[in-house]
Amino acid sequence: MRAVVYREPFEVGVEEVPDPRIEQPNDVIVRITSSCICGSDLHMYEGRTAAEPGIVFGHENLGIIEEVGSGVTRMEQGDRVVMPFNVACGFCKNCLAGFSGFCLTVNPSGFAGGAYGYVAMGPYPGGQAEYLRVPYADFNCLPLPAGTEHEADYALLADIFPTGYHGCELAGVSPGETVAVYGAGPVGLMAAYSALLRGASRVFVVDRVPERLAKAGEIGAIPVDFSQDDPVQEIKEQTGGEGTDKGIDAVGYQAMAQNGTREAPATVLNQLVQTVRPTGALGVPGLYVPADPGAVDEQKGLRVGTGQANVKRYNRQLRDMITEGRARPGFVVSHELPLEEAPLAYQKFDRRVEGYTKVILKPDTV
Amino acid sequence: MRAVVYREPFEVGVEEVPDPRIEQPNDVIVRITSSCICGSDLHMYEGRTAAEPGIVFGHENLGIIEEVGSGVTRMEQGDRVVMPFNVACGFCKNCLAGFSGFCLTVNPSGFAGGAYGYVAMGPYPGGQAEYLRVPYADFNCLPLPAGTEHEADYALLADIFPTGYHGCELAGVSPGETVAVYGAGPVGLMAAYSALLRGASRVFVVDRVPERLAKAGEIGAIPVDFSQDDPVQEIKEQTGGEGTDKGIDAVGYQAMAQNGTREAPATVLNQLVQTVRPTGALGVPGLYVPADPGAVDEQKGLRVGTGQANVKRYNRQLRDMITEGRARPGFVVSHELPLEEAPLAYQKFDRRVEGYTKVILKPDTV
Amino acid sequence: MRAVVYREPFEVGVEEVPDPRIEQPNDVIVRITSSCICGSDLHMYEGRTAAEPGIVFGHENLGIIEEVGSGVTRMEQGDRVVMPFNVACGFCKNCLAGFSGFCLTVNPSGFAGGAYGYVAMGPYPGGQAEYLRVPYADFNCLPLPAGTEHEADYALLADIFPTGYHGCELAGVSPGETVAVYGAGPVGLMAAYSALLRGASRVFVVDRVPERLAKAGEIGAIPVDFSQDDPVQEIKEQTGGEGTDKGIDAVGYQAMAQNGTREAPATVLNQLVQTVRPTGALGVPGLYVPADPGAVDEQKGLRVGTGQANVKRYNRQLRDMITEGRARPGFVVSHELPLEEAPLAYQKFDRRVEGYTKVILKPDTV
Amino acid sequence: MRAVVYREPFEVGVEEVPDPRIEQPNDVIVRITSSCICGSDLHMYEGRTAAEPGIVFGHENLGIIEEVGSGVTRMEQGDRVVMPFNVACGFCKNCLAGFSGFCLTVNPSGFAGGAYGYVAMGPYPGGQAEYLRVPYADFNCLPLPAGTEHEADYALLADIFPTGYHGCELAGVSPGETVAVYGAGPVGLMAAYSALLRGASRVFVVDRVPERLAKAGEIGAIPVDFSQDDPVQEIKEQTGGEGTDKGIDAVGYQAMAQNGTREAPATVLNQLVQTVRPTGALGVPGLYVPADPGAVDEQKGLRVGTGQANVKRYNRQLRDMITEGRARPGFVVSHELPLEEAPLAYQKFDRRVEGYTKVILKPDTV
Repeated sequence: MRAVVYREPFEVGVEEVPDPRIEQPNDVIVRITSSCICGSDLHMYEGRTAAEPGIVFGHENLGIIEEVGSGVTRMEQGDRVVMPFNVACGFCKNCLAGFSGFCLTVNPSGFAGGAYGYVAMGPYPGGQAEYLRVPYADFNCLPLPAGTEHEADYALLADIFPTGYHGCELAGVSPGETVAVYGAGPVGLMAAYSALLRGASRVFVVDRVPERLAKAGEIGAIPVDFSQDDPVQEIKEQTGGEGTDKGIDAVGYQAMAQNGTREAPATVLNQLVQTVRPTGALGVPGLYVPADPGAVDEQKGLRVGTGQANVKRYNRQLRDMITEGRARPGFVVSHELPLEEAPLAYQKFDRRVEGYTKVILKPDTV
Repeated sequence: MRAVVYREPFEVGVEEVPDPRIEQPNDVIVRITSSCICGSDLHMYEGRTAAEPGIVFGHENLGIIEEVGSGVTRMEQGDRVVMPFNVACGFCKNCLAGFSGFCLTVNPSGFAGGAYGYVAMGPYPGGQAEYLRVPYADFNCLPLPAGTEHEADYALLADIFPTGYHGCELAGVSPGETVAVYGAGPVGLMAAYSALLRGASRVFVVDRVPERLAKAGEIGAIPVDFSQDDPVQEIKEQTGGEGTDKGIDAVGYQAMAQNGTREAPATVLNQLVQTVRPTGALGVPGLYVPADPGAVDEQKGLRVGTGQANVKRYNRQLRDMITEGRARPGFVVSHELPLEEAPLAYQKFDRRVEGYTKVILKPDTV
Repeated sequence: MRAVVYREPFEVGVEEVPDPRIEQPNDVIVRITSSCICGSDLHMYEGRTAAEPGIVFGHENLGIIEEVGSGVTRMEQGDRVVMPFNVACGFCKNCLAGFSGFCLTVNPSGFAGGAYGYVAMGPYPGGQAEYLRVPYADFNCLPLPAGTEHEADYALLADIFPTGYHGCELAGVSPGETVAVYGAGPVGLMAAYSALLRGASRVFVVDRVPERLAKAGEIGAIPVDFSQDDPVQEIKEQTGGEGTDKGIDAVGYQAMAQNGTREAPATVLNQLVQTVRPTGALGVPGLYVPADPGAVDEQKGLRVGTGQANVKRYNRQLRDMITEGRARPGFVVSHELPLEEAPLAYQKFDRRVEGYTKVILKPDTV
Repeated sequence: MRAVVYREPFEVGVEEVPDPRIEQPNDVIVRITSSCICGSDLHMYEGRTAAEPGIVFGHENLGIIEEVGSGVTRMEQGDRVVMPFNVACGFCKNCLAGFSGFCLTVNPSGFAGGAYGYVAMGPYPGGQAEYLRVPYADFNCLPLPAGTEHEADYALLADIFPTGYHGCELAGVSPGETVAVYGAGPVGLMAAYSALLRGASRVFVVDRVPERLAKAGEIGAIPVDFSQDDPVQEIKEQTGGEGTDKGIDAVGYQAMAQNGTREAPATVLNQLVQTVRPTGALGVPGLYVPADPGAVDEQKGLRVGTGQANVKRYNRQLRDMITEGRARPGFVVSHELPLEEAPLAYQKFDRRVEGYTKVILKPDTV
């Protein structure tokens, strides 16, 4: 089959690789119809990780079940499904507690958590390809309505919509609250969008890229351009000096993707600590652990929740919001392209040029 | 001052009564600008309670602080405030736990919970009058933005908006869920509206009055006319046979108001138990205790939360949603009338004629 | 193999039945070392259900894995395991939400929830036998420390210890609170014991059987003999007139077992509503749905949680308490008997004679 | 009256100061019978703060109400009461949300939170004196059983017992879990004790002082001497390589008291992050904001809760545990001394000599 293969820093190719096959009775094989490129794919693309040439990328996958293992009970050939980026078993201590992003059995490296097409996250090839093997399919496949409707919206259920929502959950965003989201990349926009869906009264979104700030404004958030104003001061002024009830860090996730240092995240986290009022809470839905949340003198009594999203906790309810027309996260998608255009798409997305903000690869189109 | 006084069954008058005065250092006197008539006022109006002639009605009150007791710290003359219908102390075991609707100190009858202008709820005259005494003012007054904007929306913070929201909280409505609300009176509509604000994917509203069902449709809920269809069957069909995740009983509250029997509530509660899927939850934000929740044979693992709203838990956040334009509960208000028109308003509201669904009395207008 | 088989009302036999075998790749076969007789087995034993002759009883099972299906990842031959009485898949909507007692896929009858050896709970023979087939073994088997230590304590993890704990969870028992438990059968004692483990300051246990009340006293609870005193009055007096913070109904569960009517449960539930103070909560961890929780006039704002235990939510942590010597639930076990003595044990347990309160059958002893 | 007055670094005196008096209708005057010296008093004592000479120390106060303001409803002369160290109003946004440690109205400095006898925490003289003025007395006084029983246990309700418990609450310690507590000073011991009261299966306590480790062992915790072993390695080994479910930092609080730097807390927090397993949670019930929680490479998905205790959230339930004999926190008290011995007690406690671990001053004894 054809797949997006990592060759060397700043180069992927679309190559023939062996078809996946049922390896364990709980596997299914999915024919991919949509697989997104994620900001975190760029970590590997830019050569900033230990990813070896030959790895197939793609952890945001949606498609049609093609083949079903003998142990699979609920899924059938022809079912349209979306998979969380997390590969998880469903029965370990963490999965049982709802922490499917920290599965204890699927990653032979000994770290908690697995993913498709990602270095150090286990032996699971990615889905930027014609087919994908999905382990523990009864647990990992979320059924979708048959057909092709809302494909882009549903594809975002694999990662960034639940990840943005997870930021709100970590921060405990509830109706009527004020929220500050740092970062208006796809995850930041999904976090702001989720906060609004949860009934936040005001959501501030901090970034400096005009297009991103414009998107934030379009969904009803209040854009704050940190290249123009000190975001902490600006938000405090707009909240009567108090600060927001909650804060979400959606920069670390991206900042890591861009420069590989911890400085930017530390800066953002400090700003968040200053932006949020005493007794507030922060959600840090990224891949890294906060480096320095708070050189403040004041006692603030903050709570901080961290960690990658446990997608399964949210994907069913978010799916239902899409199906019923209550959520349309697809507004962040900028491009839907055939698989063959992946090399160019990676290049442009990596440079953030020509409006490449969120790309979906479509292996079934030419 | 002028006040709405209960004279005998089916008759209230607007009479001169003594002005309220500061009785305790923590009191304030509020000049009323809006005081709503509530469905539960009709319990007394119809003579179905032990309410004695002479009682001043009105537990949904908004106004301007006129006089401040010496122990009051935070409130000042001229502040615009809305008061929960619950009178509460703020320091008893129940208030500390957030159950201000079940205050242990303000009601000399020994029952938990106090209210303005309501039989057996303590010695607190109501606010359908020019002035109102508010005890424990620092605790009981919610400050509002100065001016007269959103007066009708804010007035609903005294009772029915938080009460509808409380139904959602008791049932634990969360984003993406399906919800059935039985009853489309003001409280039912506020419950449905709150469910949608909290991100419910679909909200069914069961009633038989065409105007109410139309209102439900206007806010984005799905009307179910129980005079046309069996609501249980109808909702099950629309949810793939499964039933809704959550259910809210907003009928008992009204049913009590209309016929004084327990039969209707029991019927509704049974329907709710059948409408909600196993592991679901019910919110019963009314004044009565459920009479028979569930002659079903199946094990369903339901949770039921009951009790009148603890308004203070929600009024601040709901106020902020109104202020920021994220909520406009005032859509349920049908009439805003001078105090002098109270007798006619009670008559028409009691008969539900001429579109009298929710009346606000305005003592400062003529 | 040998197994306890239901023959007709009031008669079980120990008979030869076919050995279970791997039917699905996720199955394991367990060699049973302990299988308890449960009060709810008596429902069937007494002929009060639709159970057909030939059914093998036993849903409280512990043993050693003998054979492992090809889809099973984590469990191995020789592992010592205890199984929740609930049979569950681990991947349906309810299992994912932690409601494994209401699994949507394992029971072909269409009802939510499965169990071993129980009428209408799915096609799963019970474990009062030499061997047991366990479906979805990775999900349903809880590993235990190797060896034979604490066998009786661990065996209670299959049902009654988590069920009693579930009562506390449904009622939200937290440290320092007062709790009333109605019923001092095995489940009631486990509920009281769990409340104490969770830090309750005082736990009242209501029953009339002297031996049960004595057990309650031994674990630090306060026995209340309802044949001597009105339990509502007695408990109110001992709580300064206030009533307890929380209440647990462990009678309905047993009452159903004894007389098959709903009257007794309704009585107990009414007493509980009166015993618990306003704003309190009730846990009803039984198999039935409450029939009439509360013909009280007072508004009380109670919450009620119902439903059979989702054993997997608790069994890991309770296991760890046993392993570390922090819990010894085995105090309720009255008899450990060879499988062959099952007929007599059922007889005596059904009549509650000779101290038969909780029996463990031991298929590996003679 | 006589009071403990700060004179200069390392010197307090017992001096005559003006008697407190009712200043606001909601005040009471309490005759102090017990006032503890707290580790955080040593911050001021050692001259490491901006505390001015003349300040009266003492924020852990218990006594008898002597005089009652005209706005006070519930408290009466002669009532025995204990006061949270937090001074709080009970009606601001934070108090209403249960964050009485972050009251927005009682501290004119603009910071959230007030306390008795503490620099920058508002104009409230301390209670190491014969009398104390208590503002918002209905809110701030917790009634105790009349008499003198359990005086030392109850006195700890003012601060360290709820503070230790708060650490457990921030970390979400639940039954059966494993917990690591860093620091075995009074707060650490209270945290470990609280974890055990909440049903933790194993509690590790890390310190290097033999007497403290011995106390930890006496209450059923597992002492880990960090001067002998790497505590991270030691605890991982004892938990099968996994680490504990939860962690509590009770060192920062003390470390700050001892050397005024941030290094020690940062070290401890890093150790905690390494000690706790992925998906775990940390409670940091101290006065400072974490400086660097986590230079780990692994994704761990941790939650961190910080901030001083909101004593009112817990003191009622903990009081009831003391009253009912379910908790005896007084085991940490090393000395009960007349007020006049305060200067020597401060000296010895500051040097941690002669077993001075927790001192209660008794102004009513000679």
